This record gives sequence, structure tokens and C-alpha cells, in this order.
Amino acid sequence: MNAPLLAALRGLLGEAHVLAGDGLQAYETDWRGRYRGRALAVVRPADTAQVAAVVRLCAAHAVPIVPQGGNTGLVGGGVPDASGTQLVLSLSRMRRIRALDADNLTVTVEAGCVLQALQDAAAAHGLLFPLRLGSEGSCTIGGNLASNAGGTQVLRYGNARELCLGLEVVTAAGEVWEGLSGLRKDNTGYDLRDLFVGSEGTLGIITAATLKLYPRPAATLVALAACADIEAVIGLLRLARARFDAALTGFEIVERFALQRVARHFPQLRQPFPEAPWTVLLELAAGSEEDARRPLDAMLGEAASRALASDATIAANSAQARELWQLREAVPLAQARDGLNIKHDIGLPVSAVPAFLREMDATLAAAVPGVRPVVFGHLGDGNLHYNLQAPERMPAEAFLRRHEAGLNRCVHDAALAHGGTFSAEHGIGALKADELAARKSPVALAMMRAIKRALDPQGLLNPGRVLPHD
Amino acid sequence: MNAPLLAALRGLLGEAHVLAGDGLQAYETDWRGRYRGRALAVVRPADTAQVAAVVRLCAAHAVPIVPQGGNTGLVGGGVPDASGTQLVLSLSRMRRIRALDADNLTVTVEAGCVLQALQDAAAAHGLLFPLRLGSEGSCTIGGNLASNAGGTQVLRYGNARELCLGLEVVTAAGEVWEGLSGLRKDNTGYDLRDLFVGSEGTLGIITAATLKLYPRPAATLVALAACADIEAVIGLLRLARARFDAALTGFEIVERFALQRVARHFPQLRQPFPEAPWTVLLELAAGSEEDARRPLDAMLGEAASRALASDATIAANSAQARELWQLREAVPLAQARDGLNIKHDIGLPVSAVPAFLREMDATLAAAVPGVRPVVFGHLGDGNLHYNLQAPERMPAEAFLRRHEAGLNRCVHDAALAHGGTFSAEHGIGALKADELAARKSPVALAMMRAIKRALDPQGLLNPGRVLPHD
Repeated sequence: MNAPLLAALRGLLGEAHVLAGDGLQAYETDWRGRYRGRALAVVRPADTAQVAAVVRLCAAHAVPIVPQGGNTGLVGGGVPDASGTQLVLSLSRMRRIRALDADNLTVTVEAGCVLQALQDAAAAHGLLFPLRLGSEGSCTIGGNLASNAGGTQVLRYGNARELCLGLEVVTAAGEVWEGLSGLRKDNTGYDLRDLFVGSEGTLGIITAATLKLYPRPAATLVALAACADIEAVIGLLRLARARFDAALTGFEIVERFALQRVARHFPQLRQPFPEAPWTVLLELAAGSEEDARRPLDAMLGEAASRALASDATIAANSAQARELWQLREAVPLAQARDGLNIKHDIGLPVSAVPAFLREMDATLAAAVPGVRPVVFGHLGDGNLHYNLQAPERMPAEAFLRRHEAGLNRCVHDAALAHGGTFSAEHGIGALKADELAARKSPVALAMMRAIKRALDPQGLLNPGRVLPHD
Repeated sequence: MNAPLLAALRGLLGEAHVLAGDGLQAYETDWRGRYRGRALAVVRPADTAQVAAVVRLCAAHAVPIVPQGGNTGLVGGGVPDASGTQLVLSLSRMRRIRALDADNLTVTVEAGCVLQALQDAAAAHGLLFPLRLGSEGSCTIGGNLASNAGGTQVLRYGNARELCLGLEVVTAAGEVWEGLSGLRKDNTGYDLRDLFVGSEGTLGIITAATLKLYPRPAATLVALAACADIEAVIGLLRLARARFDAALTGFEIVERFALQRVARHFPQLRQPFPEAPWTVLLELAAGSEEDARRPLDAMLGEAASRALASDATIAANSAQARELWQLREAVPLAQARDGLNIKHDIGLPVSAVPAFLREMDATLAAAVPGVRPVVFGHLGDGNLHYNLQAPERMPAEAFLRRHEAGLNRCVHDAALAHGGTFSAEHGIGALKADELAARKSPVALAMMRAIKRALDPQGLLNPGRVLPHD
């Protein structure tokens, strides 16, 4: 039970912020319910100095720490294992926005700040914090950075990494690295910032960050296009990029079977092109709606004349734009109503997507005849959620039990063979640590292990996540 | 002389590609002539396998390696020291463009490829590689990445780091990390890429990279504006960003005294606003010139009505645009004709620039009465070349001898006090290694040293650069 440590933690943080015993499921179970762990205790420090003091205490007692933000991760990276020996360090009380600098277009915010609260704070200054995720109402900035979150705006604004200028981090030794720089250019030594971003709490604990803000686009236009095949989709992407460059803020695709799931479970959603093999959602930022409508219309006309799109529609107003986005966002919800399925989060070079899809069709037909791919995602940055649904008369549970491991292997094999990745935006956590060890080059793995040993020699920060236990 | 190593290197690379003895000044002296070293030998491997073999040989003989690209660095990071014990590894023969993927908007290129050759290759496909530097005719991609080069387009496209998706690196052990990913999203383990970018050859040798390409803007507009004070300049930047967002590709400033240097040495260059306290050059990318001219004109009109700009002009054609850029680019050339001066490469939060400049005026008046700041730079990303010219009747040599160290300290003290940096885009090299050790936080330094030991345990990769010798 490690009573001396708990006593010291209570002395440090106060009784109310050291939780132990039963009733901690909210901290011990991930939100999808795939990981049900058991914490030694949950601590909720109030500030960076307290985080550092907790880390020093744990180092002295050789107790592992699992940092936790909004607990919305998808790979089991933020919940303790079942041993009951790991301390959960929740950043939830550290949610202050420390400073917003409109001239420098930066904001400095604590790790526990909920993404939506930051979006709102930026909007209150007429600015934009562009990270946009399904979980934005509960995920936190610290977790977004620790997992290098992606989302729907990566095409224009990049991942969480590209939005981060500086960090404050508590090291494994319980020291504080004050790296909260708001500089766009700073070439003074190794890039520690990007090493911590995406390290999922295994190299240090992010306690605050300085992030980029952007001007808020005055207007947004959304269009939907119907495409005959994936080659046409990619031609349309190329055309849209050439015409609009950075003004193209979204390019999402949905395959016909995925839209049919939406039609079945959400029949109230109007479907402009229910028969299209591929449906593309384009989003455009503009100085004004009228300025952008004419060139968007012209681009879609050119796409039609070049047989890249068979049909297209531009939302007439923001309510219609919202409806088109709902179609896209309804895909995972519709899938959930269909029952269990096998999810993937692959990334590919955009140019490799057609060959990948053709190869998978053949592979799947041979491996599990009748299996139904539900294909959708952020094509603009090559990120596909290539999910697999059971053949028509096979119960979902049996499908997963029998085929999940084998189909994961098929999909990841093909993604890697085409220059892709088996984890585009969700990270590694506990779920994919063995996959990482098996799939990454030995040279890269050896460097990662050397860095882990260099920065966390006791191995107490989120052990077993990212890199599997030795 | 290390004859056995030289013999082995000749066996590996052929006589012609192992240079030793006299006549190696082109490799031993940096282009500004501040560092005159002496190499054990210069080797020019033909491919990645040869680079790896050279590194293994050097490791076996405990011989330090200085990687070298175009030798255009400004901080002595790419030339050997005077000991005659360091091997220069030139990447100059590895200049192939391995692949260009127009659908994925990526290019894979070897480290020795000259920046301009890559710009031209992208242009031949109707695309843009946006890194733009004064040295682009001779600097190489490997050096650009190793030093995380900046330049004039950072405001829109970021530094070299932001343009890089994947790397091929030879490690200190002479292994090859094949990390040439063209993915926009890949969350599989620690960010090794960004650790090598900006590490100036001290952690590994970059042999190839996969880089981002962009659509080529169909049109570019350039405007010049006259501003009464630095606060107005910053107001104008804010307004321009709000109106044009990513279409604003350049925002350069030149202070009046700097423009007067240009007037003196390049009187043939037309100066639209010779009396303006500050002159701003704005560059805009656009789908067509006519589409952009009206909103640019409207923005400048709004700036005038809000007293942010006292006057402004838009280049009527590309020849005029070129002339306006020449004014900006002539500043360092004019300064060189004035004789020696003290150069700085500082970065600041944009919002801190006015207070920094005011403080420096007072500090300089007290430290060296009559010293003349030559202020210009990339204000859009907070990067100022805050150079100092001798007081009117003080010879430049005496000025530098007496005041360089003290004035460097003044400028760097003030930059850091305002949240800035003493090296925005030129890096550390040998020139600023002691400054790094003195200025960085001990926590950051300790992590950097731990990473260096982890990835280069023998300490043979570019020793003494970035981190000073122990």
C-alpha cells in the first residue's frame, strides 16, 4: 500500500487531493472501457511545483507515475495497469489560461485546460485555436500534446505538434524545464519540445504550453462532391489544393458503404449523393463568403468538366454547411449502432491510397470473404479510418474473436508496404506498444530506448507505454 | 597522420574522394573567413552506405567527424577545428533528387542537393519548395535541415523543420536509420526527426530527407508601407494577418538608418519612402493578381485611416516587386560596404519588440554613445537582425575590438529578458556554444547532454559544436 508515500503526498497536496481505495473507476478505466486498471492512488496537484514535488516523492519511493488529462485517449496510454502499484497524476486542476498575446498570436495554457475552453478563449479575442477533435469537450491540452493529436484541420494547420511553440515540463527527476517560449524561430540547441510532444508522458510530464493562435477566418464555405472512383477523388484534391492552397481547410472522404450506414441509422440526414461511390467534403476559409463562392464554383465546374466529380453542391448557408459536416461525423456513430467492428487509424502517402485500397480488396476477399470495409477519413493528410465490419450473417463478437488479430496484421502489413503507418493520430499507448516494437526499424527502436534511458533512467514515467517493458 | 585510417578510407571511397594535405582551404575555412581550421582529411562519399562505412571506420579509430554541406553556415558549425585531427565528411556528391510525388506533395532528396536545384525541380512540376535564403545558390538541404534554416518565408511556411516529413540518417554507430516517411500524420514513437533537425551534425549525419511541397501561388503581390513608429508597424502586421491569414507570405521591416545605408551605397535603387521611420515590405500570394489587388488596396486604405501607415504603394508589376525586394535585400550588402559591424540574430515575441527597442536605445546610449543600430528583419516571425555600427568617427576595427563582447552581452541580455532568443535562425555551431552553455537553463542543458551521450556515446560527431567541450 506504500503508506509512507501516501502520507507524504497528503502532507504535500492536502487530504482532498490524494484519492485512494475504491470509487476511482473514472481514473482507472479508459472511456471506451477496454482498459480497467487499478491505481495505487490518484493525486491532483494544483500547480507545477506540486507536480514536481510529487515526481520527486515517487522517484524516492520508486513508484511509477501515469499522467492523466481528460482520459479520452484511444490506446490505453493514460490509465494505470492492473497491478495497483502505479500512481495516477491527474492534471485536471491545472486548467488556467496564463496569458493570451494577440500581437504575437500565442496563448500560454496549463496542461489540464479542456480543449474547448481554449477554443472559446481564443474566439473571445477574435482568434482561432485550430485543433478540432471529436473529444474537444473533455480532452485536455496536455493530453493533446502528449499524444500529438490530429483531427480534421491538419491539412491546413498541422497536428498538435505544429501548433506548439513552447513547453513547461516536469522531468523524471522532478525538475522543471521552463521552456514556455512564444518564438517562431529559436535555434538554440536540441529540439526538446518536439521530443516531449507525442511521447505520451513517458519522458516527462507536460504542465503547460505556449501554443499558436491564428486569425479567425471571416467566412467558411463547405461543399460536397460526388466522385466515381478514388483516382478521381485524388485528382479533385490536387485541383483544390492548386486553386486554394492554405484556404483549403478540410478534405474529408466517405465511401458509399459508410454513407449507407448513415442512411440506415440516421435517415433524417439528407444525403445529396447517396449513390456516389465516393463523397468528398471540402471546407474553405475565406475573407468573405461572396469572395470565395465564385472561385469554389469555378473549381467544381472544372472538376466536373475533367470528370473528377460527377456532381457537387455548395452549402448555401451555415446551417446547410453544418448538415454536410453531420453526414461525415455520423459515420463512426452509425458504425457503433451496427455493433462492434475492427478499427484502424492508418496513414498513407496520398498517392498510395488507390493501390492500398485495391490490394486490400483482394486481401480481404481471400482472408474473410464478405467482410465489409467502412472507409472514411481525412484524405487531405492521408489519414484513413479503414474500419472493418463483419460479413452479413456473421455475429460481430465472433468476427472480432476470430479475425481481429489477423485482419489487423493484413491492414498494417499493407499500410507499411505502401509507405504508411499503423498509427496516424491515436498514438501507441499500451494498445500498440508491442506493435511498435515489432514494426519499427531496430535502429529507430534502439535510439528511442536510449533516449528513454537518458531522460527517465529509473523508468518510472508511464512505463510500458510507447515502448513495451523490456 | 592516422595512416591506417586514410588507407582504409581510400580503399572504401577511391583515391579521388579522400583528400589530404594542402589546398583544402575550401573545406577548412568558413565562407566568412572567421574559422580557419585544418582537416585530417576530406572525404566525399557517393552514397548512404559509404557514409555509414566512413562513420564506422572513424568510430573504430576514434576520429571525430565534421559533416559539411555547402559550407555557407554563419556560426562555424561545418568546418574543422585547428587540431588537424577532425575528418571533414562532405555530402557534396550526394545530390540526387530521388523522387517527387506531386499527389502527395513531397520530394525525397539527398543531403548534398543545393537548395536552388530543389526549388527548380519543384518549379518544373508547377510546385513550390518554399525555403528561401540568401545562400540558396550554394547551401545544401542537409545543412538547411541540420541548422533548421529560416529565411524570408517562415511567416507562411515555417522553418526548415516544418518543411521536413522524414529523414535518412547515419547514426554515430554507422547504422542507417531509414526514416524517409512522406506522411503528414504518424504517431509511432518518439520524434527522432525533429531531434536530428537543428542538431547541426552532432547527433547523426542526415543523408536524405522527404520534404513538403506546396502548390505554386499563381500570383504574388508586393507592397511597401511607411510607418511612423514600431507600434504602428505591429498594428499593420496584425491587420494584414487578420485580412490575409496564410496568404500573407512576407512581412519584412527596415528602419530608417538602415535604408539610409542603402541610399548611400546603392543610390540607383529608387526609395519610395526615404524619410519614413519604418518601412514595411508586405508580400501576398494570390490566385490571381486582380483578385488580390483590391483587398490589398482596401487593407492599406484601412491602415492609413487608422494611422498605422502614413503612405503605401503596391508594385504594379513583377519588375517593380523585384525592386522593392531589392531595397530590403540591399541592407546587409550596404552594411558590408560600410565596413565591419556587430551582427545579431535575435528573435522576440512580436509583442515585445517595441519594449526591446526602447530599452536597447537607452542601454546603448549609456554603453557606447553614438553607436548606430541597423535594424531590419523578418518581423512577421519576430526575427530581427539587430546589427550595430560604430559611432561616426570611431574606426570599425577599434569598435569591434573594444565593444563586441560587451554589446553582444547587452543585446542578448535584453532579448532574453523580453522572452527572446540569442540565435533565431543561424544556430549555435562553434561560435555560440559557450553562449548556449551560459544562457540555457541548466535543466535543458542537462537533457541535451544526456541525449548527446545517448546517441553519440564516443562524442565523435561534430564535437564542440552546439554543446561546448566538457
